[in-house]
Amino acid sequence: MRTHYCGQVNAALVGQSVTLSGWVHRRRDLGGLIFIDMRDREGLVQVFFDPDKAGAYEKASELRAEFCIQIKGVVRARPESQVNRDMATGEVEIFAHELTIINKAAPLPLDFNQNNSEEQRLKYRYLDLRRPEQARFLKTRARVTSRVRRFMDEQGFLDIETPMLTKATPEGARDYLVPSRVHKGYFYALPQSPQLFKQLLMMSGFDRYYQIVKCFRDEDLRADRQPEFTQIDVETSFMTADEVRAVMEQLVRELWQDLAGVDLGAFPVMTHAEAMRRYGSDKPDLRIALELTDIADLVKEVDFQVFAGPANDPRGRVAALRVPGGAALSRKQIDEYGKFVTIYGAKGLAWLKVNEVAKGLEGIQSPVAKFLNESIVAELLARTGAQDGDAIFFGADSAKVVADAMGALRLKVGKDLGLVEESWKPLWVVDFPMFEEEDGRLYAMHHPFTAAKEVSVAELEASPLEAVANAYDMVINGYEVGGGSVRIHHNEMQQTVFRLLGINAEEQQEKFGFLLDALKYGTPPHAGLAFGLDRLVMLLTGTDNIRDVIAFPKTTTASCLLTDAPSLANPDALAELAIRTELPAARTDKTEQ
Amino acid sequence: MRTHYCGQVNAALVGQSVTLSGWVHRRRDLGGLIFIDMRDREGLVQVFFDPDKAGAYEKASELRAEFCIQIKGVVRARPESQVNRDMATGEVEIFAHELTIINKAAPLPLDFNQNNSEEQRLKYRYLDLRRPEQARFLKTRARVTSRVRRFMDEQGFLDIETPMLTKATPEGARDYLVPSRVHKGYFYALPQSPQLFKQLLMMSGFDRYYQIVKCFRDEDLRADRQPEFTQIDVETSFMTADEVRAVMEQLVRELWQDLAGVDLGAFPVMTHAEAMRRYGSDKPDLRIALELTDIADLVKEVDFQVFAGPANDPRGRVAALRVPGGAALSRKQIDEYGKFVTIYGAKGLAWLKVNEVAKGLEGIQSPVAKFLNESIVAELLARTGAQDGDAIFFGADSAKVVADAMGALRLKVGKDLGLVEESWKPLWVVDFPMFEEEDGRLYAMHHPFTAAKEVSVAELEASPLEAVANAYDMVINGYEVGGGSVRIHHNEMQQTVFRLLGINAEEQQEKFGFLLDALKYGTPPHAGLAFGLDRLVMLLTGTDNIRDVIAFPKTTTASCLLTDAPSLANPDALAELAIRTELPAARTDKTEQ
Repeated sequence: MRTHYCGQVNAALVGQSVTLSGWVHRRRDLGGLIFIDMRDREGLVQVFFDPDKAGAYEKASELRAEFCIQIKGVVRARPESQVNRDMATGEVEIFAHELTIINKAAPLPLDFNQNNSEEQRLKYRYLDLRRPEQARFLKTRARVTSRVRRFMDEQGFLDIETPMLTKATPEGARDYLVPSRVHKGYFYALPQSPQLFKQLLMMSGFDRYYQIVKCFRDEDLRADRQPEFTQIDVETSFMTADEVRAVMEQLVRELWQDLAGVDLGAFPVMTHAEAMRRYGSDKPDLRIALELTDIADLVKEVDFQVFAGPANDPRGRVAALRVPGGAALSRKQIDEYGKFVTIYGAKGLAWLKVNEVAKGLEGIQSPVAKFLNESIVAELLARTGAQDGDAIFFGADSAKVVADAMGALRLKVGKDLGLVEESWKPLWVVDFPMFEEEDGRLYAMHHPFTAAKEVSVAELEASPLEAVANAYDMVINGYEVGGGSVRIHHNEMQQTVFRLLGINAEEQQEKFGFLLDALKYGTPPHAGLAFGLDRLVMLLTGTDNIRDVIAFPKTTTASCLLTDAPSLANPDALAELAIRTELPAARTDKTEQ
Repeated sequence: MRTHYCGQVNAALVGQSVTLSGWVHRRRDLGGLIFIDMRDREGLVQVFFDPDKAGAYEKASELRAEFCIQIKGVVRARPESQVNRDMATGEVEIFAHELTIINKAAPLPLDFNQNNSEEQRLKYRYLDLRRPEQARFLKTRARVTSRVRRFMDEQGFLDIETPMLTKATPEGARDYLVPSRVHKGYFYALPQSPQLFKQLLMMSGFDRYYQIVKCFRDEDLRADRQPEFTQIDVETSFMTADEVRAVMEQLVRELWQDLAGVDLGAFPVMTHAEAMRRYGSDKPDLRIALELTDIADLVKEVDFQVFAGPANDPRGRVAALRVPGGAALSRKQIDEYGKFVTIYGAKGLAWLKVNEVAKGLEGIQSPVAKFLNESIVAELLARTGAQDGDAIFFGADSAKVVADAMGALRLKVGKDLGLVEESWKPLWVVDFPMFEEEDGRLYAMHHPFTAAKEVSVAELEASPLEAVANAYDMVINGYEVGGGSVRIHHNEMQQTVFRLLGINAEEQQEKFGFLLDALKYGTPPHAGLAFGLDRLVMLLTGTDNIRDVIAFPKTTTASCLLTDAPSLANPDALAELAIRTELPAARTDKTEQ
């Protein structure tokens, strides 16, 4: 039904007859002629209808936006004065002599020429996706997955599917449950990741596995989260962490090369400790040159409890953030930053403006100046590298609060002051702690299957909080795009980690019995990684709206505005599943919640 | 951790040092030497340990089956007398001088040298998949998907993901439901197919879509069904049924070329009516040359109600199946076939043996001979092409029962008598009826989105049972490997089909409102197809067990014996979902059901 795509008609076809199928993108009537921009997947081309070709012209007068049509016509070069350099097909136009209206379009609920509310756009998603700028996101996504698959194939990875109807596991976020009809009262869980299955595939000897796979998390959604998301999931046997990282880095480098035309070069590797120390973040955005400077040693003795307290507390931290040119900040701006850091648990924001470095204590202006002395100020300015006209912000609290607050402030100030370099800044963050402690309990920083670096079972049990995980995150421009680890491949170590996490033997058996069993039969050393595909495509397309890169996304309340899912279930179906919903009386309208 | 895969060590490496990582497949001690077959993903290689290399040899004496090991050694040519032609690496062996035992293996719960029950094999799936013959199924599957993706990419199809958490649709089989936590009392459904989403993508103008995607059906499982299965899902715009078939046929031809080394040639195209008439099946296995012959016209007048009744009923059918050499069948065998056809609703099986064609009525032997006459027998023998020594079976009942029973009998007799040709017999079956009637209601033979061939809304409403669907199934060796259709692309036609199916306007709006809306805005003509990936891989690997081609399959009661899913859910989780299970008191043990 076509000889060419609209977007592919070019000067080489001048004089040829073509048949095109697509949509009326725009119509213009000019001097008795009817012009339309006709659109299909590959782009736009200008078509005109001449009154002398009566049949086609008369039909053309019926055309409205988004009619689906087929035309036959001859390609002509446009006169030089009418060439449109902004259009790929702008050198030519089609002189149409035949027009078939395949399907009319009612007046559109979306106006393509102006901004529509996201709610309207999601409700009429099939129309919104006709906009070339919107379609581009999904086309890029298809290119990314195709490129990823080709790379993984070439590297000998086998694409193996893992189940969607799985057993619930307590991996932090909440499972979506699926009631079983055959086994009434029992439930499947949709996978949060294929983690254990991919490890089992390594135990089976498949050696290199990958899958581009849907995963599910029933957690409170943020703007950049979706209940279902897609992972590029990878696992390998007999490879070290360095080797896994090298392969995955190569994949991402090739993606950026092919899709962004950029050479990312070799990725720097930074320990978790260094990232927290210098950037207050485990996913530092290295496009912003600002860094934190630790100064606890300078303020241990000052008569200012806000500084001296944390400086003398082994779990405390005092850090300075130098802001180039920050002396120009108004009091109001500084107050706003002070409010901003309280979101992250900070009680306030001490600050200092550097008028003249050479003058030392006299050259600064700060509410806390009175607690400082010449030598502290001299060392502070030297250590932060402050220049005349800079400002310095201070964080003083528990190490966690300082990192969270000053890490976030660093990003905010960087963006506000235009200090974000236009570039790609990838890195690896490695050597995470195995465990975090909260309320006297240990939590796995990655997941409970992550191996510790060079540590025996006895050593791990003795000082778990000192253990370093053999884990790695890939970070690009401040986004964690992927993460992985070497996995535990010994039964005893796996049991020890479970025990440290407070999972007793019975629970271990019930939840992970099959894994512990499998670890008895010659499990190979294995390691892997998972990328967030949605995130990668967001970076590559330059959008900050995750819904842009998903064909049929859900809202932040996990609804599909297009199909109106979730919906009420058939009562017979529920009866057959032996489940009953238990709702407060009047709660039947979804929109009320 | 390796320089080569075990299966890749060959004569070209003789004299070289290699490092291998893998598993002890077998151990043999011979004349003071220890030999092992070492295995990894790519195959086996023989390794030997010499007592003169004390360290490695001593460790080697600990080796047991399935230990995970690393060895370093030198490749040697085997003496001519010891070359093993059955082994890809049979010309060489490794003289090991270093052995690392990476992970020991407890005695195995599966004996690799004999048959294990499928239950045991599924429980220890990770071990069963170590068997090269079992791993081969998944490796072939990975090759198939890789090949499919490459083809689809080359043909300009875009890989676009559709949602897993969707709205329930009444497509025949039962949906898996997923309770929503945010919208308590509401449910998502796991997709039975991405049908509507792929049609919406065509309405968005993506023009060519494909996806290899999990689909779900909560129906009573047969041996060859799984609750979750994988489709190669395809949709195109502006292509005719012929064009879609041509592309898909090319894909399958390339798959068979690459994976089976076979040229399938051009696929014959057969109407549904012809398939039912000649083979009693809409997915005929053309490897079996047997055919049904209609003879209702011959027996309208006979004094035998079993024949005359259906012969005079417009919905009846009388058909003969000629079985070459069937006169040699014993009475017992014939009785068994008689029992067999009752499964399909037949009341019995009339038969006739042909002793001498030339003798006509006298030359046959049959319980029903007394009802026949010379001219009927002469015409019957001529029409079926019967030869001396053949048998003829008769089906006489409603057309449906005759097709079902005689179609099944045809396959059974074909297999029993060794009449199945060793070959690949693909075909297209086309021109299905739009509707089937049952209990005075119409049902869609494909699905309610299928377009009828050349028929107006008025004509369809007037005689729906005469309408022919623009649908096509691909059949290979009696298996339906794929099916599809041209879709309805006009709002009015879609509403008409819904109405004919008994879906009233309100229900249409509730369930398919978004589709009917979308059909108002210039929907392009579109058509598509879906292949069952599991089935394709079964055919290509030669297994008849669907579980072989799925990494972690479920049993016929939809259980995972490895992880023990489904399982009891956390009561807190259920409370949060506002659902409660309602079970008869003692039903807590899954195995009882």
